[in-house]
Amino acid sequence: MRTSQYLLSTLKETPADAEVISHKLMLRAGMIRRLSSGLYTYLPTGVRVLRKVEQIVREEMNKAGAIEVLMPMVQPAELWQESGRWEQMDAELLRFADRHTRDFVLGPTHEEVITDVVRREITSYKQLPLNLYQIQTKFRDERRPRFGVMRAREFLMKDAYSFHLSQESLQQTYDAMYSAYCNIFNRLGLDYRPVLADTGAIGGSVSHEFHVLASSGEDAIAFSDTSDYAANIEMAEAKAPAGDRPAAIQSLAEIATPNAGSVAEVAALLQVEASRIAKTLFVVATAEEGKAASLVALVLRGDHELNEIKAEKLPEVASPLQFASDEQIRALLGAGAGSVGPVGVNVPVIVDRSAAHLADFVVGANKDGYHLTGVNWDRDISNYKVADIRNIVEGDASPCGFGKLVIKRGIEVGHIFQLGDKYSQALKAGVLNEEGKHQIMTMGCYGVGVSRIVAAAIEQNHDEFGIIWPDAIAPFQVVLIPMNMHKSVRIAEATEQLYAELTAAGIEVLFDDRKERPGVMFADMELIGIPHSIVIGERNLDNREVEYKNRRTGEKQLLNLDNVIATLQSFLAK
Amino acid sequence: MRTSQYLLSTLKETPADAEVISHKLMLRAGMIRRLSSGLYTYLPTGVRVLRKVEQIVREEMNKAGAIEVLMPMVQPAELWQESGRWEQMDAELLRFADRHTRDFVLGPTHEEVITDVVRREITSYKQLPLNLYQIQTKFRDERRPRFGVMRAREFLMKDAYSFHLSQESLQQTYDAMYSAYCNIFNRLGLDYRPVLADTGAIGGSVSHEFHVLASSGEDAIAFSDTSDYAANIEMAEAKAPAGDRPAAIQSLAEIATPNAGSVAEVAALLQVEASRIAKTLFVVATAEEGKAASLVALVLRGDHELNEIKAEKLPEVASPLQFASDEQIRALLGAGAGSVGPVGVNVPVIVDRSAAHLADFVVGANKDGYHLTGVNWDRDISNYKVADIRNIVEGDASPCGFGKLVIKRGIEVGHIFQLGDKYSQALKAGVLNEEGKHQIMTMGCYGVGVSRIVAAAIEQNHDEFGIIWPDAIAPFQVVLIPMNMHKSVRIAEATEQLYAELTAAGIEVLFDDRKERPGVMFADMELIGIPHSIVIGERNLDNREVEYKNRRTGEKQLLNLDNVIATLQSFLAK
Repeated sequence: MRTSQYLLSTLKETPADAEVISHKLMLRAGMIRRLSSGLYTYLPTGVRVLRKVEQIVREEMNKAGAIEVLMPMVQPAELWQESGRWEQMDAELLRFADRHTRDFVLGPTHEEVITDVVRREITSYKQLPLNLYQIQTKFRDERRPRFGVMRAREFLMKDAYSFHLSQESLQQTYDAMYSAYCNIFNRLGLDYRPVLADTGAIGGSVSHEFHVLASSGEDAIAFSDTSDYAANIEMAEAKAPAGDRPAAIQSLAEIATPNAGSVAEVAALLQVEASRIAKTLFVVATAEEGKAASLVALVLRGDHELNEIKAEKLPEVASPLQFASDEQIRALLGAGAGSVGPVGVNVPVIVDRSAAHLADFVVGANKDGYHLTGVNWDRDISNYKVADIRNIVEGDASPCGFGKLVIKRGIEVGHIFQLGDKYSQALKAGVLNEEGKHQIMTMGCYGVGVSRIVAAAIEQNHDEFGIIWPDAIAPFQVVLIPMNMHKSVRIAEATEQLYAELTAAGIEVLFDDRKERPGVMFADMELIGIPHSIVIGERNLDNREVEYKNRRTGEKQLLNLDNVIATLQSFLAK
Repeated sequence: MRTSQYLLSTLKETPADAEVISHKLMLRAGMIRRLSSGLYTYLPTGVRVLRKVEQIVREEMNKAGAIEVLMPMVQPAELWQESGRWEQMDAELLRFADRHTRDFVLGPTHEEVITDVVRREITSYKQLPLNLYQIQTKFRDERRPRFGVMRAREFLMKDAYSFHLSQESLQQTYDAMYSAYCNIFNRLGLDYRPVLADTGAIGGSVSHEFHVLASSGEDAIAFSDTSDYAANIEMAEAKAPAGDRPAAIQSLAEIATPNAGSVAEVAALLQVEASRIAKTLFVVATAEEGKAASLVALVLRGDHELNEIKAEKLPEVASPLQFASDEQIRALLGAGAGSVGPVGVNVPVIVDRSAAHLADFVVGANKDGYHLTGVNWDRDISNYKVADIRNIVEGDASPCGFGKLVIKRGIEVGHIFQLGDKYSQALKAGVLNEEGKHQIMTMGCYGVGVSRIVAAAIEQNHDEFGIIWPDAIAPFQVVLIPMNMHKSVRIAEATEQLYAELTAAGIEVLFDDRKERPGVMFADMELIGIPHSIVIGERNLDNREVEYKNRRTGEKQLLNLDNVIATLQSFLAK
């Protein structure tokens, strides 16, 4: 491709409305343009990257035995009513009526449609397992679309759905998808981690997210520093501290703590570490029929944070999690939230494993402006339950038993679920099993955010000059930058010949044939992030040489004209 | 691919609701399933064909210098208001509001979006010409979706848009697209014709349609039997008959024609050929400010049909074309529509070229139950204008000057337009020209119905057993059909080995490893239409042979096991 015949559309200025680096660089590198909130046009450089990601995903899905289908983006409301999601989903699900006033949705995902297809096509256990996927445009009417294509309303996704009669079969396909995803991200050339994840609103039991590591990532991931263990911080188990709980030494005492409500204030006032204070949070309890709403006390160490997802899963706690109001707390205990504690309370007390390991600790006295010191479990608080309800912190023991946890940031680009029968049950999708009986299928689902990967790759691979593409998804593999070719026939001829040779060798090359100053060309090509560049200049040509530069390492070397193709091929083969 | 691990989904019965053969065969061959009116899921066999068509289109567009982009399917209403189409388009344009009650459309086409992109990105004549395309899902809320994917609501389309500062530049890109389309349809292996076409609602001046020829086609196309000339029948010019008009011989006479109103009735009663009778149709005239609506008389030979598109383009005739009511005709002439003619009428008379060539002809007398015979132009009707206002008929002289016209049926699968400045003017899309002045660009647009091609290919290539795919777009190139492999280790081993060899040779092969009777396998593979099949049976294996069969010709031959790959490769190279 010649730049003069291409739509480069690079920008010198950083657009004001872009918050994250990938969004800024995608705009500046001429990859995308905003059409409307959360809606982006992919310009040529953007499409080239997008199509490469798409093709790698397709090839690895095919290799893993998944079969490609293509479902409509517009889906009839009836199927969503059948699954219950027509009512359950909020305004993210874009609903509209057609010319005949029939209701439809713009598909944010395709569980309903694929389950409908499979219940019609598949009648026997002999046709299972089956894993169907598509690569297709999705729409989610985000309340606040942001970060460019990272959280757009219209986006490209690979979604796969598998169907089974047994957990073993589901596990096999799940494992195959796990491997396929590793292959995909390896081939894409990205630093990623599969992590244990919460199954959230989609439902199901087992789930892994695939994260591209980047300091700008929205999600926090906990890793073991010595094993393969990795989990979304929402999911990472916080173990009890090692060893037995220390014995109680101090006796219980009430102490005035005027104007000290927060853990930090109490710690400063009493000269104790935050880790020796237990903080008590009150949340609404699971409703019991015929009874007034009541509360549950959650007790954590002062230096720990509540993990709301873990708390919400407790049978005692109402879902979704709902914090008690100041009025509810005062009605229960006669004190404000800054002075409450678990001693003598008349509601269920759930204690985090680390807090349960404390002895001689400090809690609120359930009396405004007072705390209790020398508090001890069992002696002072007898009726409580221990559970894992906190977020892990760096340095915690890894739940796998090996090493300590470290925390990194990641961008979720893939997610695999063991769905169970949520959709197959709702849509009555069953087959005849080996015994000739009708049996509801169990399902897995497997998503990759194709357009999101493009942004995540940039978050992970950039410097102050622009994008640094991994070879596999670079818009072009090589760029030819001739110095003043419009004034030098010799430069023009040498570049034309290299261009022809590279093209003939099947290398994707951009030939920057613009009448621009070298500085402008260098800046544009660094911004776009083409991994390998060849500069053709007068002086080097005297020795039949051109200058190679690696975008990532910055390494430069002179190549003899006769060796350019072979050298580039060896770089690209890596 | 092994059939046992694939979703074949063939049907024995022809679905009742499918009207055309491609729809029936796509359902029966397991290519598509209906989700809702005009919405289809592509099953694996359908996707395989669709992706091949898509890839051929992409490659030829790239070769022709067009650059791929990707625009959102969801488009903001503002752009459609700016172009005027928000008001102009009927319910086919699906409009909806998002969660913030802003108006959007589901894109049926992308002139507005691309013009908006280009007006922002392109500022100088140096960046022109530019030809941008995408391959993307479109939505058109058809009143009556039918014929399966042939006229679906959601469909896959390649749409390209080019931008220029001169007609010469537009013509160059138009010609390049014309050639690219020929390359596409040649590579697809389809019998097609480019034909001159009307520009219709999209606007513009020059236009060609690309039709796949099939007896079931919706459109009629006129061809010269000796030259390359081809035109949509709506557009084909009807020339005046050769030679001078015969001299007038008869004198004008009034004759009673009771109960004879139609051309056929008058011809039978008066014992003259229909071609000697001139029929007169009245349509509403172009409105003149401050005047009451008036009529225009259109005169055609009795054996010819009015071409409404040609008539509508006459300056005298109101657009859209509107036939006069019986009341309007009686008010003007005092007679019913079956007895009217052009003699003595007080409105403009427009005479088709062939009717204008008549002498001594018959017309209605403008008196109920009477006609005039021996009528002659100039002598009896002095104030008239001659124009081409009829449909051509088979046997007409070709307007190119060579040969006679024949009529065939076609399915429109591509359409190229010289759009002019309709959208660029409305959206004020201009650049600085060589003189440094702001100049509105001129545009071309170029569409290919990717999913429609799949159906059209089947309309053209099928027999009573099923589809006959051209090699280039077959879901699989070769099928292996082993006879009773589940009972014969020898058959199983030979087939497995062939499968491995074919796969290693890069041939796309379907291995029918089902426990089915040979008859079922043959029927399914004929239905799906795989071009080349290899049957592995005991007796032939004794001679180290297998049986090759060509789906299209039915030709069979025995191949030595050592020659199978080479022979198939030679067939596929053709």
